[in-house]
Amino acid sequence: MAKSIVTPWEVSGKIDYKKLIEEFGTKPLNEALVKRIEKSAGKSHLFLRRKIFFSHRDMDLILDNYEKGEKFALYTGRGPSGHTHLGHLMPWLFTKYLQDAFGAELYFQLTDDEKSFVKSLSLEQTKKFAYENVLDIIACGFDPKKTHSFIDTEYAKTLYGIAAKVAKRITFSIAKAVFGFSNETNIGLVFFPAIQAAPCFLPTVLNGKNIRVLIPAAIDQDPYWRGIARAVAPKLGYLKPAQIHNIFLPTLTEGGKMSASNPSTAIYTTDDPKTVEKKVGKAFTGGKPTIKEQEEKGGNPDICPVMDYFYYLFEDDDKKVEEQRRLCKEGKLMCGEHKKMLAKKINTFLKGHQKRREKAKGQIEQFMLRD
Amino acid sequence: MAKSIVTPWEVSGKIDYKKLIEEFGTKPLNEALVKRIEKSAGKSHLFLRRKIFFSHRDMDLILDNYEKGEKFALYTGRGPSGHTHLGHLMPWLFTKYLQDAFGAELYFQLTDDEKSFVKSLSLEQTKKFAYENVLDIIACGFDPKKTHSFIDTEYAKTLYGIAAKVAKRITFSIAKAVFGFSNETNIGLVFFPAIQAAPCFLPTVLNGKNIRVLIPAAIDQDPYWRGIARAVAPKLGYLKPAQIHNIFLPTLTEGGKMSASNPSTAIYTTDDPKTVEKKVGKAFTGGKPTIKEQEEKGGNPDICPVMDYFYYLFEDDDKKVEEQRRLCKEGKLMCGEHKKMLAKKINTFLKGHQKRREKAKGQIEQFMLRD
Repeated sequence: MAKSIVTPWEVSGKIDYKKLIEEFGTKPLNEALVKRIEKSAGKSHLFLRRKIFFSHRDMDLILDNYEKGEKFALYTGRGPSGHTHLGHLMPWLFTKYLQDAFGAELYFQLTDDEKSFVKSLSLEQTKKFAYENVLDIIACGFDPKKTHSFIDTEYAKTLYGIAAKVAKRITFSIAKAVFGFSNETNIGLVFFPAIQAAPCFLPTVLNGKNIRVLIPAAIDQDPYWRGIARAVAPKLGYLKPAQIHNIFLPTLTEGGKMSASNPSTAIYTTDDPKTVEKKVGKAFTGGKPTIKEQEEKGGNPDICPVMDYFYYLFEDDDKKVEEQRRLCKEGKLMCGEHKKMLAKKINTFLKGHQKRREKAKGQIEQFMLRD
Repeated sequence: MAKSIVTPWEVSGKIDYKKLIEEFGTKPLNEALVKRIEKSAGKSHLFLRRKIFFSHRDMDLILDNYEKGEKFALYTGRGPSGHTHLGHLMPWLFTKYLQDAFGAELYFQLTDDEKSFVKSLSLEQTKKFAYENVLDIIACGFDPKKTHSFIDTEYAKTLYGIAAKVAKRITFSIAKAVFGFSNETNIGLVFFPAIQAAPCFLPTVLNGKNIRVLIPAAIDQDPYWRGIARAVAPKLGYLKPAQIHNIFLPTLTEGGKMSASNPSTAIYTTDDPKTVEKKVGKAFTGGKPTIKEQEEKGGNPDICPVMDYFYYLFEDDDKKVEEQRRLCKEGKLMCGEHKKMLAKKINTFLKGHQKRREKAKGQIEQFMLRD
């Protein structure tokens, strides 16, 4: 089996999430903590019940202080190298749950600079994608009064000053060790960890008092917070940001995470129904070579991305998920039918999302933070 | 003799300027070019006559195009690690001559970020010094309609976007080779060459058409333009910036350049008359141990910073300079008297400068570029 690699710029291979917790030195999001979140939030979330958010740093501290009446801010982000796909939406949807439940201000960073540093895209292209992605942020239903999106190069007046203070305290050696930079890395990317760390302290800077920050994000982003923001915070008199990490949405093929750089395996929020049907139709499954064989021996839902999609995103009812799994195993749910069910679910979701996304074109400024 | 070192962060030892031209690969500012500048400018300048500006890159191209009716912009800067001293004023005064003579727009960068990266100063401290330095810029008499000063962290909205495009095309290897960075260099300073290169392209970005830029600056700043701005310009579709370089104002002690980090040997624009008298009074000279010996054998003006100060800055009349030199050699001008003459000249200059500097406190915004 190929070695699994998880860095902010590469996720590949079969991922052992338990091992990642050990490697990264985070803590598992255990039952007790899930219960505390649900209790404070006043409602559950399938991402918690199903351990899609599975790891954290200082989530307990966030709750300790929230229970004492101290509000926290949320910070998450997006690297605008293309259109938004379903995998990107996972932390966003969870962030919305947290915003609704805890009344938290949300700071949403769009790293047009980073994506121009690591891809063959120009800044003009990444900024254009950033504005496309903002439409998806808005379509998720965040509170316009509490949601502050910003694009790095447009918000640099505030961001660069904070980043400069972070950067002063990070040597090239440290950045190299944390991110695997080489001498051939461009100096924009070398500096970028400071730009990504800056929003951890932005609520504190904007409010003139220390505000605790919680970052919901996929686990691959952890090095930024572990190696940079959390390391530097005490030196700058700021609080360390807390984190809560999700696993990756599987691809429609075998293994790895859904990747925007492989369009045929990713479902974009801008895809039309026919495209979704086509992509889902081509998906890898846990089915058998012939219908006859599958009726006799049953399918394998444990390796099936179609099953995963229901589990991760599209079937909130735990009983229905179990029912699907059982029918698959018993050879009573054929892959073709299962795919049609999924395509229908996705298209129903996208229909609503795309309607809100279209409306969002007139609401962008309400969601932008300007300096 | 100690090895001479010239980098943007260190200038020490006895400097062989002819050798620097060879090492840096610049061109000497020869008689023909001086004549062309004076002709186009319509007047001479002591810095040209006395080869205080002695080296250049593409100054001939600037003139070729100016003679065809194409305007150029000026760009110079200041690292705000302290108050302004007389050494800093040299390129500024020459820049004013060029602005007046050629009607050029001037972009003046104050690198509060850089100085916090390399010194034990906080960004708050360097920004405070930047505003102090702006007063001196204004006091030099630049045209408020054509002079655009900016402090890096305050003008980052525009600057960072341009710098990001530069940074993408500079690897750590290159920055290391040009500036002697090590793995222990902080990532702020690693990125900074892109921030210092950005204003080379700022007039073009702000005007939406290619504008040629001329940088008057001390020769130690050359690596930024040679290694970064000029190397990257063609890749970004910009014109390479031209440069014109000055030698350093000697210290009042032996050798090196006047340094803000050694306050007793530097005369600040904020010094009062008594302080100036004291500092000049303690200066090294080319005199003999006793008055008697000096009357008999004469002094040595060639190694004397007091003589240098008249030559570099405070005696525009070539004949009077020669007269002083002759009298010194003949033992007819004693160091004590010469120092008094110099202190008086400096104090007369500072009286006017400080008056304009005081008035400048109400004019800052006229000279600031905001984004």
